[in-house]
Amino acid sequence: MNSKIGDLIYAGKAKDVYETDNPTQVIVKFRDDITAGDGIKSESLVKKGFYNSVISSKFFEVLEKSGIKTQYIELIKPGYMLCKKLDMIPLEVITRNIAAGSLIKKFPFTDKQELNPPVIQMDYKNDEYHDPMLNDSITIALGLATQQELDGIRDITLKINAILKDFLLERDILFPDFKIEYGFDSQGNIVLGDEISPDTCRFWDSKTWEVLDKDLFRKGESGVMDAYMKVASMILSNEDKEKWNINL
Amino acid sequence: MNSKIGDLIYAGKAKDVYETDNPTQVIVKFRDDITAGDGIKSESLVKKGFYNSVISSKFFEVLEKSGIKTQYIELIKPGYMLCKKLDMIPLEVITRNIAAGSLIKKFPFTDKQELNPPVIQMDYKNDEYHDPMLNDSITIALGLATQQELDGIRDITLKINAILKDFLLERDILFPDFKIEYGFDSQGNIVLGDEISPDTCRFWDSKTWEVLDKDLFRKGESGVMDAYMKVASMILSNEDKEKWNINL
Ligand SMILES: Nc1ncnc2c1ncn2[C@@H]1O[C@H](COP(=O)(O)OP(=O)(O)OP(=O)(O)O)[C@@H](O)[C@H]1O
Ligand SMILES: Nc1ncnc2c1ncn2[C@@H]1O[C@H](COP(=O)(O)OP(=O)(O)OP(=O)(O)O)[C@@H](O)[C@H]1O
Ligand SMILES: [Mg+2]
Ligand SMILES: [Mg+2]
Repeated sequence: MNSKIGDLIYAGKAKDVYETDNPTQVIVKFRDDITAGDGIKSESLVKKGFYNSVISSKFFEVLEKSGIKTQYIELIKPGYMLCKKLDMIPLEVITRNIAAGSLIKKFPFTDKQELNPPVIQMDYKNDEYHDPMLNDSITIALGLATQQELDGIRDITLKINAILKDFLLERDILFPDFKIEYGFDSQGNIVLGDEISPDTCRFWDSKTWEVLDKDLFRKGESGVMDAYMKVASMILSNEDKEKWNINL
Repeated sequence: MNSKIGDLIYAGKAKDVYETDNPTQVIVKFRDDITAGDGIKSESLVKKGFYNSVISSKFFEVLEKSGIKTQYIELIKPGYMLCKKLDMIPLEVITRNIAAGSLIKKFPFTDKQELNPPVIQMDYKNDEYHDPMLNDSITIALGLATQQELDGIRDITLKINAILKDFLLERDILFPDFKIEYGFDSQGNIVLGDEISPDTCRFWDSKTWEVLDKDLFRKGESGVMDAYMKVASMILSNEDKEKWNINL
């Protein structure tokens, strides 16, 4: 692997994006920072970046094998993911299989109610406006995407959901919901970007219903990193674990 | 006209719905009450019910003439509208031609920005949850409507918007936005219900940009009834005015 890390292009709340010597590629650095409540609650969790990058890479590999276009090129080393540089679409595309979180606060769904077909929600990634929920008409009027792009995004998202839900259930993990982001690659394809990790998904142990994601941090509970490491341990193959020297 | 007013079926914030001797018909009584801010601000405006019922009737007549199915049967006398009884769909269907109000608070649109094509938004009529904005996926998951019904509602709504926008502009009124409600009639048709009035629309004088709607009340300004009466005076024909003994 020869990608040299270049200038910092963007520092987000949990990741940094760096240029490489290839203008169509970036290195996404997964940091240990964790935030919640619109950025109000903020901490650092030792090795979170390491584990989130490994977990995300695993999901991207699984999706690529099923024919989904993702940003993923390779994990250079834990924490550092070589990716296609994408022109990001400022949408948080949320898919829900089980009702939880803001959905049950905002709407009369029952806690843990099964949602089949899954519910898809798109929020506008805009800190100033606090990531408001969109509908297609508003999204189009804001110039964020066309109707055709939105329909395409929903289509890919449902495929991603089906693939990951099955992959996780085989590993005793329920997949109540997750948030993903898309962008355009240099050829104008809509490609899955960002990350898929316990920071951006709900994961519940399917046998014990134990929470294994950022909700622990949101609620101020202990054992956040233990939960993230448990997810890694449950989804990684022995080969993966050896490769990254993970002993769980 | 022989419809006898029967038992009160429902008392809303601004209208009462009464049974009639015909089980497929109701009398909607337009009251003088006016509320804003989730019902916190509440007052009574002399003759508001009179004028809103006359204005609403005019719009329903215009729409019926253009082939739109509405609840409207006749205005028995100002304040009392004989209507098809509808099984209401709990959606507030909002159409916007010019950005104003909550749209510019929640999203980065510019105040008074033209929206063409119009923006359509559907809020869940649910006081307990404070009328949250929906998207199609959530609406369907809540069992409020099917995809086909939502597409049909959008279709009719855009037609209604085009008809009323033209009608109003010919009478020197701009139509920035409006809220309507639909229901099913006894044959299962989706039919326009409720009201179309300065309580549920934005109306601006196209020459002076003067506000002629409930925004005056929301902002605590004076001349609210004068504005409502001005709308009546601008949209009613001389025949209408004579019929209802309106001297404006
Ligand atoms: N392949 C990619 N190419 C370019 N930018 C990307 C790519 N994948 C993700 N990004 C962007 O990189 C940034 C990652 O930063 P991070 O997720 O830490 O912060 P944020 O998204 O700004 O804040 P938050 O996710 O906490 O709301 C995001 O802006 C994301 O949209
Ligand atoms: N043709 C109809 N048949 C039966 N019910 C109707 C018909 N048209 C409207 N309605 C219903 O009658 C009620 C009218 O009451 P009103 O508009 O005063 O109060 P509200 O809608 O409950 O409160 P608000 O509009 O202030 O949120 C509403 O519930 C409306 O959905
Ligand atoms: Mg992010
Ligand atoms: Mg009402």
